[in-house]
Amino acid sequence: MQSALLTLILSFLIMMAVGPACIPLLQRWKFGQTERTDGPQSHLKKQGTLTMGGLIMLIALAVSALVFSPEDQRAHLMLASLLFVLAFTAVGFLDDYIKVVKKRSLGLRAWQKIVFQLGLSLALALYCYFHEDIGSSILVPFVNTEWDLGLWYIPFNMFVTIAVVNSANLNDGVDGLLSSVTTVITVTLMLIALFMKYSGVNTAVADTMMVLCAAMAGACLGFLRYNAHPARVFMGDIGSFQLGAVVAVAALVLRIPLLLPLLAITYVASSLSDIIQIGSYKLRHKRVFRMAPLHHHFELGGMSEPKIVAMYTAVTVLCCIVALLSLGV
Amino acid sequence: MQSALLTLILSFLIMMAVGPACIPLLQRWKFGQTERTDGPQSHLKKQGTLTMGGLIMLIALAVSALVFSPEDQRAHLMLASLLFVLAFTAVGFLDDYIKVVKKRSLGLRAWQKIVFQLGLSLALALYCYFHEDIGSSILVPFVNTEWDLGLWYIPFNMFVTIAVVNSANLNDGVDGLLSSVTTVITVTLMLIALFMKYSGVNTAVADTMMVLCAAMAGACLGFLRYNAHPARVFMGDIGSFQLGAVVAVAALVLRIPLLLPLLAITYVASSLSDIIQIGSYKLRHKRVFRMAPLHHHFELGGMSEPKIVAMYTAVTVLCCIVALLSLGV
Repeated sequence: MQSALLTLILSFLIMMAVGPACIPLLQRWKFGQTERTDGPQSHLKKQGTLTMGGLIMLIALAVSALVFSPEDQRAHLMLASLLFVLAFTAVGFLDDYIKVVKKRSLGLRAWQKIVFQLGLSLALALYCYFHEDIGSSILVPFVNTEWDLGLWYIPFNMFVTIAVVNSANLNDGVDGLLSSVTTVITVTLMLIALFMKYSGVNTAVADTMMVLCAAMAGACLGFLRYNAHPARVFMGDIGSFQLGAVVAVAALVLRIPLLLPLLAITYVASSLSDIIQIGSYKLRHKRVFRMAPLHHHFELGGMSEPKIVAMYTAVTVLCCIVALLSLGV
Repeated sequence: MQSALLTLILSFLIMMAVGPACIPLLQRWKFGQTERTDGPQSHLKKQGTLTMGGLIMLIALAVSALVFSPEDQRAHLMLASLLFVLAFTAVGFLDDYIKVVKKRSLGLRAWQKIVFQLGLSLALALYCYFHEDIGSSILVPFVNTEWDLGLWYIPFNMFVTIAVVNSANLNDGVDGLLSSVTTVITVTLMLIALFMKYSGVNTAVADTMMVLCAAMAGACLGFLRYNAHPARVFMGDIGSFQLGAVVAVAALVLRIPLLLPLLAITYVASSLSDIIQIGSYKLRHKRVFRMAPLHHHFELGGMSEPKIVAMYTAVTVLCCIVALLSLGV
């Protein structure tokens, strides 16, 4: 536990130290946000807020995770996880870069994103499948058994990764929202890893995931300094893909993907509301929400941004507690 | 751990259910805030916001703590703790009531507060001193020893209680600030109690404190629904005294009052900044801060309320982690 807690502190301190150095760079590179013209009206004033804050988080995440990476024969797990996160972050970076440079507010084309994501998630799925401590079986919460998916594990794992990363991306859009929620999720994943270590399940990977999640939690917490309402810096896709990738990797490596709908309930809410909105519009030419994803629905209903963040965070805390209970903590 | 987590959930759910029923009552009783005329200018628009939200928290705290109170021969600890918290909450209520009814924005007179607080804290000090599982020795963090204060324990205990309760009171004043910070503090106290239970220190009291802190954490988290920026309801002194009392009781019963400067670092910052400001003004006729307590200093410096909350919460998280490390978690 000590190394995880120290990782979290280091990651936070890096955020504090590196932020003020990086922000002028982001400014010089003109990484300002181009607001979607179909977003909430009130967001148009956010035009020009710096974006790509995820770059700062990536530094904090990588440095602190590597410093406290547990030294044993399975050190490749930390490297592999970080590489995978880095690759997803790179996709996010491309997306941001196109938005900023080409001033095309939607970024990468859909098919480009899909190809990148399929490739990366296949790599992760194969890595997990062939890793001696992970394999093709997952834990079933509440009933306390394992479920061996066999070869189906690979498409399942890919689906989880793609779903989590894109849902995290959709969950971004209100100042401080995604970083607050993900702080809670990663701290919970850290506690789950700790619990697994002491109860003898998955011990080999638990140490590494504890440190990885702690590093992400510290970075998210530190990012709030720049991202709390009114945000000075947005994380951009380079941030949201990164956060999503860490959550996906940790849940998959700890073999608890089935807990993700609880842990990352606000990610799910963002995705589902988007799907429902689009589906309903295509089928019935009617909208279900004032605007999708769900947080914009609340925003247009008159809720302040800090209140949405408070609500999403509180709901995440509660669902994370239920997730902990489901594992018998 | 399970009962503590369930307590937290129950307490939160009570907040969700009771709030909408209580708020119209607060309105009917005309419990609107009279803003201090010497507070930040920007706060004048908060005139009339409902106050005494602490009443809702008291219901959630008491019900959930009693429902999950551990059943053993030491059940009087939970009752005693709750009675003590209730008594302090009553002082806060009086203070609020005078503010609201007499429209005198400072509430109870100083000597009245001092008499009430001395009496209550003496009662708690004697209870702890004579309790077979608490007694006159406290834990010294980092060096892992105990320190028997003998009879000095009683004034020390009284000082801690009075300091914590009044500091919590001073830490209130920005939307969502005190409830966010206290959520983190009480969750940490819950984890410390858990750790003590499993490592065999203070086992007898740990269960009870875990539930008490969980109940407070759930209430604080739930209160954010009404209190996040822009606040619809303030907690009032009835809330801040209550939160302070729970933190004081838990730290004293778990015998870790020396960790309080770390756990409740923002309480300390609020108090100290107030003392420094007043001292400096009396001695040198100069102000050190733009306005005391410290959060108003940041506010007048142009920081948004949500940003102050994010900063205070992040600092509390980090200091709480250091506190956990100091106990060898």
